[in-house]
Amino acid sequence: METGPLGTHTLIELHRCDAGLLNDEVRLRSVMLEAVRRSKAHIIKDVFHSFSPHGVTGVVVIAESHVAIHTWPEYSYAAVDVFSCSEKMSVETVVEYLRDHLRCQEIKMTKFKRGTGLRP
Amino acid sequence: METGPLGTHTLIELHRCDAGLLNDEVRLRSVMLEAVRRSKAHIIKDVFHSFSPHGVTGVVVIAESHVAIHTWPEYSYAAVDVFSCSEKMSVETVVEYLRDHLRCQEIKMTKFKRGTGLRP
Repeated sequence: METGPLGTHTLIELHRCDAGLLNDEVRLRSVMLEAVRRSKAHIIKDVFHSFSPHGVTGVVVIAESHVAIHTWPEYSYAAVDVFSCSEKMSVETVVEYLRDHLRCQEIKMTKFKRGTGLRP
Repeated sequence: METGPLGTHTLIELHRCDAGLLNDEVRLRSVMLEAVRRSKAHIIKDVFHSFSPHGVTGVVVIAESHVAIHTWPEYSYAAVDVFSCSEKMSVETVVEYLRDHLRCQEIKMTKFKRGTGLRP
């Protein structure tokens, strides 16, 4: 008997965000961690890194899988992805919190089921 | 003038892998790091975590973005994603190395362009 999917992977394009925030590793980390907390996910560890001359990468490893962000302040753009294997986690909460706190004016989202057609 | 895409996000489904390897955090980390090194990406930091009773999550943050793996040994399945913003990085090398060293018998891949239609 087949089972799955095991989770949903959501790719989120954040356009026309606040460029200053996208380049501020400390504030971006704080926004990301709060977004993840509010989604009811369980944070295990996070890694953030600033690039020269600009851009930040951040990954939050969660019990439910991961939330990652990569920013291009020069385009006021951020690429986010949320992989969640729990229906209790609200991906919408992550997206709305990031939209509001990174001041994004345009969002595109695509969802993919991961781990389909599995057999034990 | 519009520019982009800034990168490619590849979602990779690894089916019918070696379940023992998928549950061995130390060996999985070693396989992942070597796959990333061979792809010509530049490793910044990595985070690996074992779950109870089984399953491992690993994220490798790279200068080119990230490579992540989440395993479900009970289904001999792993979900991998590679986000690369460099054409010099070979995503194919990552996939082939993981396939061979996690002994996967079936792979499905989907690629998405990230950061399209941007304006500076």
